[in-house]
Amino acid sequence: MTTKKKQLKLGAFLSVPGNHLAGWRHPDAVPEYDMDFALYMRLAQTAERALYDTIFFQDTVAVGGSDALKAGDLTRTRLSRIVKLEPTATLAALAVGTKNIGLIATATTTFNEPYNIARRFSTIDHISGGRCGWNLVTSQIEDEAGNFNLDTHVDHALRYERAIEFYEVVAGLWDSWEHDAFLRDKESGVWFDRDKMHFLDHHGKYFNVRGPLNSPRTPQGRPVVAQAGSSEPGRELAARTADIVFTAQTELEAAREFFADVKGRTARYGRTPDDIKIMPGITPVIGRTMEEAQEKYDALQALLPDDVALAALARFTRGIDIFSYPLDGPMPDLPEANSAKSRQKLIMDMAKKQNMTLRQVARSVSAAQGHRVLVGTVGYIADQMQEWLEADACDGFNVICNYYPGPFDDFANQVIPELQRRGIFRTAYEGPTLRDNLGLRVPENRHTAARG
Amino acid sequence: MTTKKKQLKLGAFLSVPGNHLAGWRHPDAVPEYDMDFALYMRLAQTAERALYDTIFFQDTVAVGGSDALKAGDLTRTRLSRIVKLEPTATLAALAVGTKNIGLIATATTTFNEPYNIARRFSTIDHISGGRCGWNLVTSQIEDEAGNFNLDTHVDHALRYERAIEFYEVVAGLWDSWEHDAFLRDKESGVWFDRDKMHFLDHHGKYFNVRGPLNSPRTPQGRPVVAQAGSSEPGRELAARTADIVFTAQTELEAAREFFADVKGRTARYGRTPDDIKIMPGITPVIGRTMEEAQEKYDALQALLPDDVALAALARFTRGIDIFSYPLDGPMPDLPEANSAKSRQKLIMDMAKKQNMTLRQVARSVSAAQGHRVLVGTVGYIADQMQEWLEADACDGFNVICNYYPGPFDDFANQVIPELQRRGIFRTAYEGPTLRDNLGLRVPENRHTAARG
Repeated sequence: MTTKKKQLKLGAFLSVPGNHLAGWRHPDAVPEYDMDFALYMRLAQTAERALYDTIFFQDTVAVGGSDALKAGDLTRTRLSRIVKLEPTATLAALAVGTKNIGLIATATTTFNEPYNIARRFSTIDHISGGRCGWNLVTSQIEDEAGNFNLDTHVDHALRYERAIEFYEVVAGLWDSWEHDAFLRDKESGVWFDRDKMHFLDHHGKYFNVRGPLNSPRTPQGRPVVAQAGSSEPGRELAARTADIVFTAQTELEAAREFFADVKGRTARYGRTPDDIKIMPGITPVIGRTMEEAQEKYDALQALLPDDVALAALARFTRGIDIFSYPLDGPMPDLPEANSAKSRQKLIMDMAKKQNMTLRQVARSVSAAQGHRVLVGTVGYIADQMQEWLEADACDGFNVICNYYPGPFDDFANQVIPELQRRGIFRTAYEGPTLRDNLGLRVPENRHTAARG
Repeated sequence: MTTKKKQLKLGAFLSVPGNHLAGWRHPDAVPEYDMDFALYMRLAQTAERALYDTIFFQDTVAVGGSDALKAGDLTRTRLSRIVKLEPTATLAALAVGTKNIGLIATATTTFNEPYNIARRFSTIDHISGGRCGWNLVTSQIEDEAGNFNLDTHVDHALRYERAIEFYEVVAGLWDSWEHDAFLRDKESGVWFDRDKMHFLDHHGKYFNVRGPLNSPRTPQGRPVVAQAGSSEPGRELAARTADIVFTAQTELEAAREFFADVKGRTARYGRTPDDIKIMPGITPVIGRTMEEAQEKYDALQALLPDDVALAALARFTRGIDIFSYPLDGPMPDLPEANSAKSRQKLIMDMAKKQNMTLRQVARSVSAAQGHRVLVGTVGYIADQMQEWLEADACDGFNVICNYYPGPFDDFANQVIPELQRRGIFRTAYEGPTLRDNLGLRVPENRHTAARG
């Protein structure tokens, strides 16, 4: 009797022009990966050839660090992720040059209207034939508030309260039309069946939305919903709403705890553990030997000045002046954060556990933004991935690259074949939609369900 | 001495699945043109082969007539333009399958945030290599308000006030970065030149927006701005901000007056008449003879029941119960409108001038939404277009089709070659950007200009 091994899900987190803050300075890096759409398309098509489940774009609706830039801090002119293509327009464009890969973009619930978001992601699902996903976030950085009429950032708890209601409205709008609502019957002249069109009539604390959405039910029922918050309200929101959870996990035991905790919360929302795929980030640094991989990583770190690393860390240290602490002293304690709470906690836990200096913390955060770095041979990296998968620490990984395109191509050409050889990653797409490939059910339209 | 004749600009207004409300019922019509992206792409590529300046999508953020549908009016289940692809995502996707044609989408200033709109259109300009345009509108239909937390529609004057400020913010954000701001210098590690990044720091009645936009200056300096409002504040906003004006004009003299009026207003904003291209809509019905064309039009009209026509007219007759008036009586007077003001005036002027019955007005509006219908041979249609062009009634036309794809293909394959033969339409694109083809200047970045 052969039982099929548990299969990895893989996302390509396209953190262009490189997730490592000095990655773009690598001799092989192409820094134009931040804005050149043809290069984005190249990555998407490479990911599709490698059979990734999905590509994924994070997002912020501001230039990060603009407060500091305004105050005259020139260190930040050495940070690379300043401008980028807006992710939803980018997804729609990438849909045209790809056929199977999933397409997930971030859009904030803090500074958008649910009708607009429901509609845009529905449209991308239609354009892509059922491959679209929405990474639902609450805005994380203070800089964003200033672009949306606010002096200060919205309180963390209120952001989550709004996010939950935002999701309910979006999910409700996605059920505006049953799958067979449109008749387009030339003979009778009837375009649609009124019984299969549904008003939402949502009246809540943050939103009053009548509907119906002016977009039909989508090819995969509705777009996939991803989430990345790992704080207490973030976990609860994920259990309630998410199909995919992106997370930063560096330790096996903590990852297992997170995995069990989030999946364990699903029951109270009438969902099952299999309804959520948990995908921590990993950053591969591949060498022919362990030593060569370490040398590669060291060479990258050598491109990163301490002051740039510290400037990047400052995003997570609001409330104290991180620049006033000695670089080789201990990582100072932080006041409670109002944004990126879980990431901040991860950083502090790592610093305490490993007894790291401020310099070490800053350089580590700049290198991987809190994600796990796997420095080693193809075999070592595959071992680590397999270990976590089989230990129920994850359902798969979000692969994040230090720069583009070299490490991205190397992972696709070297690590993925090894995962396939081990029988833990697909050798062909399971189906045409993102839900097919992730093994997720097509959600029933609530009105069709009520009809019985 | 040969002087080049004044050249037509042509837009393809893709009013899918057909601008004529019964067009989709035509035996040759493909009603799936409302949602099938592959069909949208086919239209865009046909338009590009025909050398159109641009394609254009209108938009509303609601299902039209939802009030009536909610009240149980089943007539509206026979109206075809109920759902559609969201235009900005669609533009981005169409950019990938085209190389030269302009890509213009509508986005409302009433129910969006300027930062999001500035960014999305900037991104599409980057993705398309400088072919993007934004049709700036204020929301026209009452149904939209209910999807955005409002019980009633925003007052007309306030919508325009907000629109002006919205435009100022968007235009300001588009100047956030000078063209040479990004250095990406691996050696020094400097990513961008701080002197060429600019905060907006806008503080207004409707918006407080700090900036900078997280998108660089676009390939054509900034996206083209189109506008379609023809009311008094609409004309003023156009003179101040628009590169293109879409308008509904059915009479030569009125079109000449509109043309002169809008162009005449440009001076007060430091602009010239050439800075605005005025493009009325036309709907062609092409026959090998005039009689055949008329028969085609009559056959189309025969597919349109009176009650469906009346339901469509009701959009422009808020404030009275249009259904209570006798169909063969005179068109009743209307109270002052709060939306689609100029279109309503056009309809009333037409009704009075031609002494039309309610039935005639309803059928005329359903057939062409207030636009001019040219029923005749290729020669007749080209004559009409040339006459208006040479009479300074327009800079070109927005071509609107009763259904797809037949009339669209016929115009491309028959009328455009005739326009080319007459020397009033291009035989090759002038350049890679929409501004190149429209003959519009690339706007200088305000900060680069100030630098001198």
